[in-house]
Amino acid sequence: MPTIYHRVGIKTSAEKLFQALTTDQGLSQWWTHETSGADAGVRSIIDFKFNDSLVQFRVKEQIENKKVVWLHYGEMPPEWSGTEISFGFEVTDQQILLHMKHSNWQEASPFFAHCNLKWAVFLLSLKDYLETGQGKPFPNDVAIDHS
Amino acid sequence: MPTIYHRVGIKTSAEKLFQALTTDQGLSQWWTHETSGADAGVRSIIDFKFNDSLVQFRVKEQIENKKVVWLHYGEMPPEWSGTEISFGFEVTDQQILLHMKHSNWQEASPFFAHCNLKWAVFLLSLKDYLETGQGKPFPNDVAIDHS
Repeated sequence: MPTIYHRVGIKTSAEKLFQALTTDQGLSQWWTHETSGADAGVRSIIDFKFNDSLVQFRVKEQIENKKVVWLHYGEMPPEWSGTEISFGFEVTDQQILLHMKHSNWQEASPFFAHCNLKWAVFLLSLKDYLETGQGKPFPNDVAIDHS
Repeated sequence: MPTIYHRVGIKTSAEKLFQALTTDQGLSQWWTHETSGADAGVRSIIDFKFNDSLVQFRVKEQIENKKVVWLHYGEMPPEWSGTEISFGFEVTDQQILLHMKHSNWQEASPFFAHCNLKWAVFLLSLKDYLETGQGKPFPNDVAIDHS
């Protein structure tokens, strides 16, 4: 099944990257400023709000400073039903190479292509947040179209 | 086989987008400033230079203001052998939705993931070039790691 797969290199510590992926405070600095529910850890439901749209994930797995896996939980957007998002840490001398996958898509649709580019934008926002202190979470994210 | 697929929305004309994808002058404004060979059209070999690295494509197909297809031609990087890149135009009232695919990868490797994110960066550079007059071609491209 089609998978979105990105790799980004971030000069940070595994502790700080893990914090950015597993806490409301961290997630709100690079994906969407309205994030809640992450702090309860594995099995919790995280709510990500984008104005009137709600996207929900259940935290499936967290291995401290190594890996985070979310399973899509809510109903919106419908194409995300059954998809899973994982973040794997590859620590090197220079940086942490973060491997991000959004897997189990039904098809490589135009919406998949839209999300692929949009995930790139948010991963660069995560990189900026950790390296400069300033990410670009929604609604300050980089626009990729005029819809 | 794994495919990189991005969609980006650009407020421009089909003529200007086609020019940005089929001429040395256009390509040098968003991918790499050292581009040569594109002006000869279908069957020509385009050389894209990134400092000491050369990447070559043969122009396989060009449908004016609608579609461009390149087939990888040179030896570098090896993972790109046999891959193909296509740009398809979807014209709407608001914008042109550009569908970019880099297909026929042997595997969804970490290098594939690196290129996926890097294509996103260059497609946003293309969007900026056409909408603001200023892209970020190599060597002024956005860094996605510290290698």
